[in-house]
Amino acid sequence: MKFTIEKVCGKARAARFSTDHGVVQTPIFMPVGTLGSVKGVFHNQLAEDIKAQIILGNTYHLYLRPGRETLEMAGGLHKFSAWDRPILTDSGGFQVFSLADCRKITEEGCRFSSHIDGSKHLFTPENVVDTQRIIGADIMMAFDECPPGTAEYKYAEKSLDLTNRWLERCFNQYEKSAPKYGHYQSLFPIVQGVTYPDLRVKSAEFVQQFGADGYAIGGLAVGEPAPMMYEMIEVVNGVLPEDKPRYLMGVGTPVNLLEAIERGVDMFDCVMPTRNGRNGMLFTSEGIINIRNEKWKNDFTPIDTAGVSFVDCTYTKAYLRHLSIAGEMLASQIASIHNLAFYLWLVGEARNQIICGTFAEWKTVMVEKLQRRL
Amino acid sequence: MKFTIEKVCGKARAARFSTDHGVVQTPIFMPVGTLGSVKGVFHNQLAEDIKAQIILGNTYHLYLRPGRETLEMAGGLHKFSAWDRPILTDSGGFQVFSLADCRKITEEGCRFSSHIDGSKHLFTPENVVDTQRIIGADIMMAFDECPPGTAEYKYAEKSLDLTNRWLERCFNQYEKSAPKYGHYQSLFPIVQGVTYPDLRVKSAEFVQQFGADGYAIGGLAVGEPAPMMYEMIEVVNGVLPEDKPRYLMGVGTPVNLLEAIERGVDMFDCVMPTRNGRNGMLFTSEGIINIRNEKWKNDFTPIDTAGVSFVDCTYTKAYLRHLSIAGEMLASQIASIHNLAFYLWLVGEARNQIICGTFAEWKTVMVEKLQRRL
Repeated sequence: MKFTIEKVCGKARAARFSTDHGVVQTPIFMPVGTLGSVKGVFHNQLAEDIKAQIILGNTYHLYLRPGRETLEMAGGLHKFSAWDRPILTDSGGFQVFSLADCRKITEEGCRFSSHIDGSKHLFTPENVVDTQRIIGADIMMAFDECPPGTAEYKYAEKSLDLTNRWLERCFNQYEKSAPKYGHYQSLFPIVQGVTYPDLRVKSAEFVQQFGADGYAIGGLAVGEPAPMMYEMIEVVNGVLPEDKPRYLMGVGTPVNLLEAIERGVDMFDCVMPTRNGRNGMLFTSEGIINIRNEKWKNDFTPIDTAGVSFVDCTYTKAYLRHLSIAGEMLASQIASIHNLAFYLWLVGEARNQIICGTFAEWKTVMVEKLQRRL
Repeated sequence: MKFTIEKVCGKARAARFSTDHGVVQTPIFMPVGTLGSVKGVFHNQLAEDIKAQIILGNTYHLYLRPGRETLEMAGGLHKFSAWDRPILTDSGGFQVFSLADCRKITEEGCRFSSHIDGSKHLFTPENVVDTQRIIGADIMMAFDECPPGTAEYKYAEKSLDLTNRWLERCFNQYEKSAPKYGHYQSLFPIVQGVTYPDLRVKSAEFVQQFGADGYAIGGLAVGEPAPMMYEMIEVVNGVLPEDKPRYLMGVGTPVNLLEAIERGVDMFDCVMPTRNGRNGMLFTSEGIINIRNEKWKNDFTPIDTAGVSFVDCTYTKAYLRHLSIAGEMLASQIASIHNLAFYLWLVGEARNQIICGTFAEWKTVMVEKLQRRL
């Protein structure tokens, strides 16, 4: 996977990387397609209206449903879900620790019961790589233990050691196995270490031995204060190589994205634009709208005059509020498209500002605006 | 409203009528947009993919939410919901009798408690016309009492007398009031009479005194056997004028539509394509698919190779089944678009066959196919 930096502005980078399913321009936000669909969004809307360049799938969910057999028979997730642009899959680690019941971590891996039917499963570094081979993700993630954000130092250190041993096994399996569908698959290690700078440094150094195509920062935005998250990003990015993409997992608000881009992060994913959208929260370049608020009841202006997707000018605030209050599906669909298109616009605009060398000033103005409540 | 019959084939008619929001070619199916949105469907999909020519709104639901004030301030439902093609609204009669709590029918009208918050309301023939003036429907429906399909003769007769007195009041109010937004609004009477031929005849004769732009047949598909419904349609259409559109309310399955078209019906609405779609039932020209069935698990063929909407060739049965089993919103969206596009294709093809004079033969073949379980 070729990663090319086009322009640097402070620590912020405008770059691009290529996969066999197409080029991705960074900084980039990846909509979350948990089960092979970005909730409420058609694929043509995702490509044409939202302008998503790459989406994320969840290995844990896809392993349970539709399952490896169906995915392999389909020829992988791209064919199964009719999405021909790049896909990144997480390793399932985070879901196993947050969703599954009765999980038990051993050196071997993690035993858990499905949150759907209670059936018992084992995830190991090896079979998680195998599953992602079957999914056919362009970018696969290593299997890691995800300690809680409040974990004490001793547990964090022990957990990191386990994650590191698992990482070696992941890369062993990665090298022993081959892509199933003719396209190249990268494997990204994940930097852990909770909020302990020395553990983060140790982890960021350890992961580099595999010469991976890119590196992820995990275990952040899990309850720690935002300044501490930003500090950890700085610590980690100070150690990670400059010539590889850096992916901050599961983050975050529009402000989080800009702060992380300023600190040299290139890739993001988060359920926030779709999940919060389904609850009536809209992110805009002028601030945050709670569309369920009474104040929009008779506001017949467009949802977002500065918005970039068709929903922004097609529908009014009053109409969207009505649909949301009445529990109509279309409210979730409209809000999801708006928010995702806004996130993609935001990272695209950040990229433009980096290229123009005006990122820092622009970011300062935007961060102030993005936090307003409209 | 001008209604022009282009071709008759047996009793089946290919015709067209014009409204200030555009021409509608009949036979036509009207997707149900209960609250100002066809559930799960974007307006551009409704127009371009489904090719809906006219949609239906529910006065009862729109009266409760967003309410008359908001609808009037918006300039009517067309502007409020960003739909610029024709709209027909029912009168709320059916919903009051099926959804509302504690309804009480008097000569004046019907008092009821909202199914949402228990608030008390009164629908009268006059205020139901007023509400539809505010909604701005191109076609408004008269306020009627909807007796159950099992009603005894005596009750059916008494109910019809009340409906007829209400109809006179509806037309009084219609003539005393004017459109609010500059476009013409029709008012259709509704033929009632349960399953009693003499009451149906009496009703179909009574409604003609108002010289309406069209006539509806109500109170069918409410539990009576299908042959009895078809018999009632024949009885009523034998009395209704030939030179006006005939609208069979709330019907039905694809087979119901063809049987009714054969008996001279021009217009239909039903929640079946969207509601059943959300439950995984797909109507196709080769029969009915329950997409949740295990047999589709690894069927990677398109949803419907003969289908006319983009979802039919974009997505496979296996993928749609997976989304449906996993409870993903997109499953409902795909199935709704498929089913509505199929219904619109079916009435359009019926129209073509009428024009070609081959309706009867085509219908015989189709009725057999439409009932298959795939």
